[in-house]
Amino acid sequence: MFLKIRELHFLAGRPVAILNEDSAKELNVNINERITLKKANFNKGIIAIIDIAKGLIEKDEIALSVEIINQLKLKKGDIVEVGAAQKPLSVNYILKKLNGKELSYTELYSIISDIVNNNLSEAEIAYFVSGIYLRKMTLQETTDLTKAIVQVGKKLQFNDKRMVLDKHSIGGLAGNRTTPIVVSIIAAAIEKYKLRAIMPKTSSRAITSAAGTADVIETIANVEFSLTQIKEILNRTHACLVWGGALGLAPADDKIIQVERLLSLDPESQLIASILAKKISVGATHILIDIPCGKSSKVSPNEARILKHKFESVGKKLNLNLKILITRGEEPIGNGIGPLLELLDVLSVLNRDKNRPLDLEKKSLLLATELLSMLNIDKEKARQICINLLESKQAFYWFQKIIEAQGGNFKNLGKKLALAKYKETIYSNAQGKVEEISSKKLANISRLAGSPENKKAGIYLHIHVGDLVRKKQPLFDIYSESKEKLNYAIEVAEHSGVIKIR
Amino acid sequence: MFLKIRELHFLAGRPVAILNEDSAKELNVNINERITLKKANFNKGIIAIIDIAKGLIEKDEIALSVEIINQLKLKKGDIVEVGAAQKPLSVNYILKKLNGKELSYTELYSIISDIVNNNLSEAEIAYFVSGIYLRKMTLQETTDLTKAIVQVGKKLQFNDKRMVLDKHSIGGLAGNRTTPIVVSIIAAAIEKYKLRAIMPKTSSRAITSAAGTADVIETIANVEFSLTQIKEILNRTHACLVWGGALGLAPADDKIIQVERLLSLDPESQLIASILAKKISVGATHILIDIPCGKSSKVSPNEARILKHKFESVGKKLNLNLKILITRGEEPIGNGIGPLLELLDVLSVLNRDKNRPLDLEKKSLLLATELLSMLNIDKEKARQICINLLESKQAFYWFQKIIEAQGGNFKNLGKKLALAKYKETIYSNAQGKVEEISSKKLANISRLAGSPENKKAGIYLHIHVGDLVRKKQPLFDIYSESKEKLNYAIEVAEHSGVIKIR
Repeated sequence: MFLKIRELHFLAGRPVAILNEDSAKELNVNINERITLKKANFNKGIIAIIDIAKGLIEKDEIALSVEIINQLKLKKGDIVEVGAAQKPLSVNYILKKLNGKELSYTELYSIISDIVNNNLSEAEIAYFVSGIYLRKMTLQETTDLTKAIVQVGKKLQFNDKRMVLDKHSIGGLAGNRTTPIVVSIIAAAIEKYKLRAIMPKTSSRAITSAAGTADVIETIANVEFSLTQIKEILNRTHACLVWGGALGLAPADDKIIQVERLLSLDPESQLIASILAKKISVGATHILIDIPCGKSSKVSPNEARILKHKFESVGKKLNLNLKILITRGEEPIGNGIGPLLELLDVLSVLNRDKNRPLDLEKKSLLLATELLSMLNIDKEKARQICINLLESKQAFYWFQKIIEAQGGNFKNLGKKLALAKYKETIYSNAQGKVEEISSKKLANISRLAGSPENKKAGIYLHIHVGDLVRKKQPLFDIYSESKEKLNYAIEVAEHSGVIKIR
Repeated sequence: MFLKIRELHFLAGRPVAILNEDSAKELNVNINERITLKKANFNKGIIAIIDIAKGLIEKDEIALSVEIINQLKLKKGDIVEVGAAQKPLSVNYILKKLNGKELSYTELYSIISDIVNNNLSEAEIAYFVSGIYLRKMTLQETTDLTKAIVQVGKKLQFNDKRMVLDKHSIGGLAGNRTTPIVVSIIAAAIEKYKLRAIMPKTSSRAITSAAGTADVIETIANVEFSLTQIKEILNRTHACLVWGGALGLAPADDKIIQVERLLSLDPESQLIASILAKKISVGATHILIDIPCGKSSKVSPNEARILKHKFESVGKKLNLNLKILITRGEEPIGNGIGPLLELLDVLSVLNRDKNRPLDLEKKSLLLATELLSMLNIDKEKARQICINLLESKQAFYWFQKIIEAQGGNFKNLGKKLALAKYKETIYSNAQGKVEEISSKKLANISRLAGSPENKKAGIYLHIHVGDLVRKKQPLFDIYSESKEKLNYAIEVAEHSGVIKIR
């Protein structure tokens, strides 16, 4: 069928085509199904998702979202050839998984590649997620899924044979901003001991938390770079602290996670494949994974053990040098929650401030030590190296170098480090011992106050689990740049039982 | 957040709002999630699905699809209040089902009502379908699902106490256009024997077949009426043959089926609930359900028995007077496939033509007899009544009355009954016995030729299973109004092995 482009400044964030109801009937297609679009005299077509309009669009017309208009270089009045797209083959594999059968690498690759190319709708991806969630995946499937995600994405590749170090935390714990400290210690160690290694750390932005490492670093430096720029930074500073999102390293992931979020699903195999794929894509040779477990984190001690075992089994199949640490996840780590407040924690540890959060320091040292010891360095020696690099402020020096390589200006941070305009303290209304601090609730309050979009918004904790508190003693401060948001956050903070005192 | 309406003639077939990337971030919402929209100084808001645009839409602007613009009576420059919609509660129940728990009526009602009100996305509906498909539903759940679908939709209600007859076929068989014949016989019987009954038959249009009853009747009459108009028709002719789609009788259904089609899923409980809900919504007191089973239909004999049993059990819980017939589904019934060609079969049976398809006549008589016998009429007597009404052409007379009540003109049908412009015959290339005729492949070829959009397109079968054929004997004719479509249909017909000869 040939249709004429109607001029409509129409934006969808994905390739959408709007058809007249009658044309849709004639093509035998429905809303959310797919059509193929081809410009006359062009060989290559693309796939678009269908919306159907009653009226306004004529039968010989089609409206296309800006993505398609740009991709096919179309203008008003141009003619495109439109056909019903064949159902992608991968739909059969999704059905196969839903019916409890094991998928091969080729079948998983077909699904992942169709997800990335917009050939599968959110509903079809939801069926895939349901299949993984309810039918589980074998170790072989999880391994193949990881490979497929890597294969479809871009890769960070080096010509020399430097070791590539990486770390990851499965998250869930408020604060816990160890990454900038670990990366700084490792960069300093690489320099001092002439290790043939790099640490190209890519991080995420917050999805449901108050801040991701990328949000924290963005407070004082850029985090969005191309793969080529990242290589340059690594050559100067041995390590980087960038946002992984725009690099296209594991592009299937974002779409799958978006669909999982609808029901807050997080199937284990997908979690493992997603993390390992990103590490493989940056060429990681030594990978440390932190699984915080306990009341305030995502997993219980038992779940953590199972997860550790699966990570190790899949890692083995993928020939990865992988170390899994199960760490304490009973309460938030550090005092700050939110981009700026977490950065201030990081800076105070690196700068050896008297009031620095010692729990954050301890955990960062633990992770840096484990990572170094993976390079055949005796663990006690690795530990001494890390302590020394931190205490001598060599780690701080390399943090500054990284920030400056990423466009930050360490000499002129004053304004960026200034606290938010508004602050309100939440006081204890009981006397006793702090029994529980909920990471999830703190994240929620912090987001209501404006984080992570507003870098200065967040929470500063005055107490930790086990502390004895009196009535009217300050528990935490809420920071915000907006009076309204602050008030809303206070209201929720006062009624959500975020801190349990007994 | 307050945003200004940007003038964009933007159509989506569902309530879609396009936000600037930054506003979306600030609201913490993502593509395919939901926002609430409220016009300033208005109490009632609505829910919209989000698309996110990079560029073109400013941070203080919002673009809304025509559905919303009309519903809230908005114009360019108007200000709307926009907020992140709470996740609907029903999402928790979908997750509950996915996790294998039984849902209550209240929970199912919440899901169904959110589906109808656009509060659930296609992906969330896909999770619900996955839950029903993989976890199955108990009889109680299927019963409650039926009730919920009825509750959310409109109903056909009468003040008097006439019995309401209905029939349904679960479909899958090409041709098989018994409904117009059965309805005509019943209308004639109601008149002749002064039965206090009506038969308000609502039918569907084709989804994947070559024609639905609504498509067939539409060849010579209107099928789209309001509930009030349907009541008037029933008062004049005891029965009707209308399209159920626009009546809003079971509106959740269409959306669920649309999502099921993506993976060609058809979970049993949903099938049962969907059919029974539509019957309950028209107030049916006596319901006959036809399950064709065999090689050419949807279900095997064993599946048919299980389905029959479930229908009966759910029907009992719903206090329905239900009769389930398992009929032969080895091959298409009648000779015509496609709206006009099926109508011609119906007319030739009603008009007692010498060459009328006897298989169609036999099955129609069987169904009409079973339906009449449900009204406490002895089965052999019911059978004689039906044969008599058909042979005396009283059934034909009532068919004409119904068609005319629905705006058709029986005296001037010439043009409408004329065959399609183009016809091509497919001949046998082998000698032997007809072993199999595939309904699915015939439907596909017929659709390629243009049906059901093009009423005259379709197939006319010259042979039936068991017939002996010689080489070069005509197997079937393909009709089309377009030379191009005909050629494509022929090509597929010649290579798809639609008829197996041994």
